[in-house]
Amino acid sequence: MPTAYITAPADEADAIAERLVEERLAACVNRFPITSTYRWEGEVHHDEEVALLVKTTDDAYADLVDFVEEIHPYDVPCLERFDESHVLESFVEWRAESISAE
Amino acid sequence: MPTAYITAPADEADAIAERLVEERLAACVNRFPITSTYRWEGEVHHDEEVALLVKTTDDAYADLVDFVEEIHPYDVPCLERFDESHVLESFVEWRAESISAE
Amino acid sequence: MPTAYITAPADEADAIAERLVEERLAACVNRFPITSTYRWEGEVHHDEEVALLVKTTDDAYADLVDFVEEIHPYDVPCLERFDESHVLESFVEWRAESISAE
Repeated sequence: MPTAYITAPADEADAIAERLVEERLAACVNRFPITSTYRWEGEVHHDEEVALLVKTTDDAYADLVDFVEEIHPYDVPCLERFDESHVLESFVEWRAESISAE
Repeated sequence: MPTAYITAPADEADAIAERLVEERLAACVNRFPITSTYRWEGEVHHDEEVALLVKTTDDAYADLVDFVEEIHPYDVPCLERFDESHVLESFVEWRAESISAE
Repeated sequence: MPTAYITAPADEADAIAERLVEERLAACVNRFPITSTYRWEGEVHHDEEVALLVKTTDDAYADLVDFVEEIHPYDVPCLERFDESHVLESFVEWRAESISAE
């Protein structure tokens, strides 16, 4: 099952997390503040952001990517997929139900 | 080598981390506070929790899962395995020794 | 593409992040404070550290490992590679450019 790693501006991370769950693109979003260091147009920059660990399913992943590209405020958002090699069975079922249920 | 990602109530995370190391199911546990957004019984909820990154070995992983299922306070704990594709050799050795030594 | 997970002393993490970006070994470093619990010489210890998520490329990974081994203050640093199974295309390109550009 995939976990998507996404970074977002600190003041928009709550809203992004909530929309992903509301739209049934994620069963759960865990988030935490981060400091980012990166190069942009030749200069090294530092920013305060929030990282989101988005717990989703194989079936929902493509729609999640489309949705994030549409709503994310950055031109070049950090969105990365990490695949779990094992997940506790009850948590697998809960994720699938949370996302598919209407 | 596996890293297990586990979430826990903020006031029990320290004790869980300590027990995993004491029981030699983990060489090291890194943890940090998170905000979780998820759907439960139809409603979107927010919770303050702690995420644990549990550094273990292939051999200890199955026992780690059993132990977490036994002691974890949630009915449906988040327990996910992520496999590292490379680890610094000295850290591989230290993890194996920390877990197997008596 | 690889994300390297590295832990460091809290008062050296900023400098390590900055050097990795300056040396073009990473396009971006996200970092956050962690509490670590581990066994060292038979005793269970707790430490406040910082975790770094280092966004790099396949080509730069080996040099990143060499550099971290050289500058890291620990005898046995935690350095682990996690491979992403998908990354947003624009972010792939930005990472590659940030690291290779002169």
